[in-house]
Parts: sequence; C-alpha cells; structure tokens
Amino acid sequence: MRDVAIIGIGMMHWGELWEKSIRDLCVEASLACIEDAGVDHIDAMTIGSMSSGLFTGQEHLASMVPDYLGRKHLPATRVESACASGGLAVRTAFLEVASGMSDYVLAVGVEKMTDVSGGMATYALATASDQDYEAFHGVTFPGLYAMMARAHMERFGTTREQLAQVPVKNHANGSKNPHAQFPFTVTTEQVIGSVMVADPLTLLDCSPITDGAAAVLLAPAEKARKLGKHPTTVITGIGQATDTIALAQRKDLLQMGAVEEATLRALSMAGRSIKDISFAEVHDCFSIAEIMVIEAMGVVPAGQGGPATLDGYTAIEGAFPVNPSGGLKSKGHPVGATGVAQIIEAVTQLRGAAGERQVAGATAALTQNMGGSGGSSVVHIVEVQ
Amino acid sequence: MRDVAIIGIGMMHWGELWEKSIRDLCVEASLACIEDAGVDHIDAMTIGSMSSGLFTGQEHLASMVPDYLGRKHLPATRVESACASGGLAVRTAFLEVASGMSDYVLAVGVEKMTDVSGGMATYALATASDQDYEAFHGVTFPGLYAMMARAHMERFGTTREQLAQVPVKNHANGSKNPHAQFPFTVTTEQVIGSVMVADPLTLLDCSPITDGAAAVLLAPAEKARKLGKHPTTVITGIGQATDTIALAQRKDLLQMGAVEEATLRALSMAGRSIKDISFAEVHDCFSIAEIMVIEAMGVVPAGQGGPATLDGYTAIEGAFPVNPSGGLKSKGHPVGATGVAQIIEAVTQLRGAAGERQVAGATAALTQNMGGSGGSSVVHIVEVQ
Repeated sequence: MRDVAIIGIGMMHWGELWEKSIRDLCVEASLACIEDAGVDHIDAMTIGSMSSGLFTGQEHLASMVPDYLGRKHLPATRVESACASGGLAVRTAFLEVASGMSDYVLAVGVEKMTDVSGGMATYALATASDQDYEAFHGVTFPGLYAMMARAHMERFGTTREQLAQVPVKNHANGSKNPHAQFPFTVTTEQVIGSVMVADPLTLLDCSPITDGAAAVLLAPAEKARKLGKHPTTVITGIGQATDTIALAQRKDLLQMGAVEEATLRALSMAGRSIKDISFAEVHDCFSIAEIMVIEAMGVVPAGQGGPATLDGYTAIEGAFPVNPSGGLKSKGHPVGATGVAQIIEAVTQLRGAAGERQVAGATAALTQNMGGSGGSSVVHIVEVQ
Repeated sequence: MRDVAIIGIGMMHWGELWEKSIRDLCVEASLACIEDAGVDHIDAMTIGSMSSGLFTGQEHLASMVPDYLGRKHLPATRVESACASGGLAVRTAFLEVASGMSDYVLAVGVEKMTDVSGGMATYALATASDQDYEAFHGVTFPGLYAMMARAHMERFGTTREQLAQVPVKNHANGSKNPHAQFPFTVTTEQVIGSVMVADPLTLLDCSPITDGAAAVLLAPAEKARKLGKHPTTVITGIGQATDTIALAQRKDLLQMGAVEEATLRALSMAGRSIKDISFAEVHDCFSIAEIMVIEAMGVVPAGQGGPATLDGYTAIEGAFPVNPSGGLKSKGHPVGATGVAQIIEAVTQLRGAAGERQVAGATAALTQNMGGSGGSSVVHIVEVQ
C-alpha cells in the first residue's frame, strides 16, 4: 500500500447560500483546493454527499461534478454514509491512491440543504436512521440524541452546564474561523435558555442546516514531498466501522461501538495511541455527541466527558483540544461536506496556518466523522511527515 | 496492486417483490453469495444503490446492510453513480482488496423500486439526468434515449426492426435465466406493436422497474486460487469514465464518450483488445442503448450496431454474444443491482455454469454498466486465470 498525502485543501464560507447551487458549491471548493495545491492535474475524484436526491433532486453527482469542473471523462465515485459521507469520500480517495490505481485524487464533500423546507430537511436527515423501526414511528435525530443525553445524565451525573459547555467552547473556537456559518460566541445561559428542541437539548445544542462544500487533493506521499509548497501532511491511519443503525438495537445506549472501533483501527494502522494525538476534530452534531465521542475515543474515561469539557480539557489551550475549527455547531454542518472539512482543519492546523485558533505545536491530528446515531464512523489520523 | 478474484456470487429471482424490503433483498443476495463462495469471512463491504432515499426513504445503507447481515462493526461504503452504481460497488470493492486494506470484500448492489408509485419512480430515475437543464424541463430517460434513437436512424439508416431485435434477442436469452423478471420471448411484431413510450421506443424497448439485489465476494487472487471450489475468475481490467451529465452538452448525440473511454481503459489494464473478449454483458436500458454501446466499445463499427444485431452477430451463438443473461430488458433493472448482476453473469459463464444460455468456450468476459444517458460508465474485464 502506498503512503498517501494531502497536498491541497479548499473550502469557502458556509451558510444559507441561496444564490449557489450544489454544482457551484462543488466547483468553488474544488478550484480553491487545486489552487492551494498548486497542482492542476486530477486522475480521479470522489464525492461525498448524504442525500443530494432528497435535498436537491440531483443524484449522479459522479457525473455532474467532473462535468461542471470541466474534467472530461474523469473517473468519479460518489459515496454515502449519512453524515459520515465526507470522511468516506476521503477514505475512498485514499484507497484509489494507495492501491496505485490513480495518483492525484480529489475528494469533495457537499450538501445543499436549504433548497427544501425545514420539514423536508428533517425528513431527509431522518433517512439516516432506521426507516422501518425509527423514522416511520416519528423519531428524528434530536430525539435520538436527547435520549442518549438523558441516559448519560442519569448514569454519570452529567449536568446541563457540562453539556452546554460544548457549544460554548465550539462557538468560541468558530468565532476565529472565517469559514464558519455562525462565527459568534454564546454563553452557558444562552445555550440553556434557547428554545427547547428535544429535552434536554435546546436549539444551541444542535448543529445547524447548512449549505457548503469542502475539497482535499490526495497524492502519493513520495510525490507530495517533492512539491515543497506546504509541509507534507500524510494520512497515517484510517479506521472505519459500523454499528446497528437503530439506537434501540444496541446493548447499551451509551456505547458508541462504531466510534470506538474506528478509532482503534485508525490508531493501530498509524502505530499511535490516543496520547500521541495533538488535537481532534469530532462529530458534535449535538452537544452530547461530542461528550460521548471523546469518551469512546479514549480521550477521557467513560462518564468523564462532561466534567473534562467544563474544566477546559478540550479547549484550544487545554490538554487535548477538540474542534478548534468550531465543530459542526459553529462552522455549520452541510452533512456530506463535514468529514472533508474536518480533514481541512487538520491540515490547516498541521501547517501552522490556523491563525487565532492555532493549536500550539500540533503534529498529529485525528478526525472523527459519524453517521446517524453512531451507525457508522470514519476516523483519520493525519501527521506531518 | 494485488490481483483480485471473484470467489462468490449470489442473487435471487428479480421482479415486483412487494413482500420483501430493501434489507431483505440485500441480506438474501449476500447470504447466497457467501454460500456460493464457501467462505464465511468478510473484512469490508460496498453497497451500490442509486437512490434508496427517494425509492424507500432509507439512506445510510452502509450502516443498515452490515447490521442486518449480522456483521458487527464491518466497514462499509455505499456508492452511487445512477444506474452504474452496481459496477461502481464492484470497482470500489476491487480497490479495497487491491490496495491491501482488506482481503474479503462483499459488493452488493440493490434497488427496491416498487414501493413508490410509477410517477415517483420516474422522478427518482430522472435525478440521474441534469436536474437544472433536463429534468426540470420535463425530459425523462425514455425521451432522452428516443432522441438518440431518432438521431441514429437518421444518420445511419438504423431501422425499427433492427432496434426491435435487441429486446427480441435479450428476451430469448432471458427466457433461459431462472433469475429473470420477464423470462418470456417476444417477437419483432410484439415489440413494434407494444404501447408507445417515446417515439420510436415502445414499452418493449424499455427496461422495466424492478426490485432486486446481487452480491459478489472479492478476494486476493492468490487466496482465491487456494480455495479450489470454482475456477478462479480474476478481474483483469477496470475502466471508469464520465461524460457530460446533460445529453445536450455533448458535441455529438451519438458519441458515448464515457463508454468508449471506460472500455479502452479496462482493455488496456487487462492487456487485451476487444477481439480477445468472449462475450459481453452491456447496459441495454433501452434498445438503442445496446446498439450504441456495442459501437462505442468497438465490437462493431459506428452505425453497424443495428444490422449486426439483426444478423445475429450478438446472439448467444453469434460471433460476439451480448447479454446472454437477458440483459436489463428481460432480467430486469433494479438500477443499483444491475452492474453487480452483470459480473455474476460473467462469472457464471466463465464457470461454464450458464446452462441453456452458456456461451461456448467463454474465457474472457466484459461487463459494461452505465449511468444516465451515458454520463458515467464502469467496465470490467473478467477472465479465468
């Protein structure tokens, strides 16, 4: 297997971008990525999108994106694993390069979510849950994560203030990210006092509906080292795992098996332990998700996610910074793009180019992308080498 | 890159399977495949499905399928390229094995199309065309292919009888296939006299709406050779290419650039020419498609697809058999499953196990899967080695 590096990154400001279509978003992020890489040669591409069919009436992005990017006959693959589609696009591009099938492979993540009504967006997102045993009976993701939050509070004594610290921290980080959809800070009182969505989760505990795209260009590490434009950032580990799609099918509501397994696999492939990681971008689709994910990844012991967050352990200047980009909460969550944007933050930090939100001395980053209520997860380890 | 073999194949009868859900279809085909392989070990899986979101309200098949197959934490990737999703699932599984990331990789293709009304099915399929410049203005696939048919008749003098010979031949072949949705023969008169869909294409020129799944198990060729249960069938070439998603954007309505390029790439990787191929399974979504595809692949010169078909050149006992399985027309076309089922026919024939529809002395098969009006294509070469 060949070593694979990330030689270019590209994304634009995310938000409610009514003046842009899904094809515009893909092309803008791709061109920004090609510009950043300084390499205008692509052998293949992957596109991560959760549900372009339900959100925009457009499937077949594998044809449309290379077409509108002006890359005649380019081999392209669209992948989907709900909100982990972006991470999966990077993994699939990795295999394309690692196998020797292609050299320069562009991975684009995209979701255009605001062309439909809020009810339709909720319906489209709920297709990531078990249609027969969850969605059909009316449960949607805020409800599923609220159940996990309640269980976590019950078993571990996690408090409402601890939960609220996730968006407080992430908005503080995101306020320093020019791409963020909501680059403002919020207080604990604002989070707790915002409108209730699914008890105990309020509006400010939930990641938003977002339009956006993100792109990274992968190449064999050997070729990347000769480019000299940026420090060479290598994907040293990839882990992917799944779990029951329905939350109720798990033995324990509070065990995120896919996250645990994907993290172990990625660290094992990289020959690292979680202690070697400088910081992580994780899937904070709801406040409770970040707390459960850092526990599943072994950043803190089970039950300690809440207190650790409140104590500043995961702040940018903390012992293990989590979501320096602002996370899904502040940066926005165009579902198919999120996993790719996590890799972009990893590379930006490893290049030392994150400005005010820079994690000091970062050499190894971990990104954790997740689908549904933890039904799938993709983890990448990126290191300067 | 490691050599990759197909060690197991599995599919069930296709049709309007109202008593089966999308999860049943995937599990049945997968279990049949595992049984055929005699290997009950899977390291990863890929799932090809065009639009499970629009057809069934269920995305996130990458979580659901391993879950219902009882494969805890299995890494899984759903891929989509409209009606070429199945071929792409096999290609993605190939990369997984070829790269060394995984050894035993299951590729499943599926579409459950009859849970929605006919109008909704037409809408879902039309998302494979250019939403902004085709679908939005009312054109659907029968109309797009009818325009190609008219242009072909105009430029090359292709006749209605020549077009009709495609379904006549394919139904004759499919009548010998126990998995086929429509295992009956049809006459030229019946094809021409059936209800008009989009002039000149009648109902019997169009592939049907189908529920079905198909699965293949890939493994390193080195391991496959030690199994000894079946002749070793190796994927010696893969070609993938795209074209403009909108038909109107092409310089020539009659040039299928993605098919041409994908075929050249696959043959080049295999070190073969089209003359080395024993038979092909191709994407006959409409009668005209098979004619244009065999021209694009170089089986016959441009303009000769019609006469060659009428002359029996592509019949099972002809010089270059095309669609011995019955093709999409007779076997059915559950869009995400089609590309995987083509590989199954390739393997069945190469094992000499195709019964009444056996192509004599088959040693090298080509499968050609296509998305939209030719916006994407995936070609595989499979050989006994």
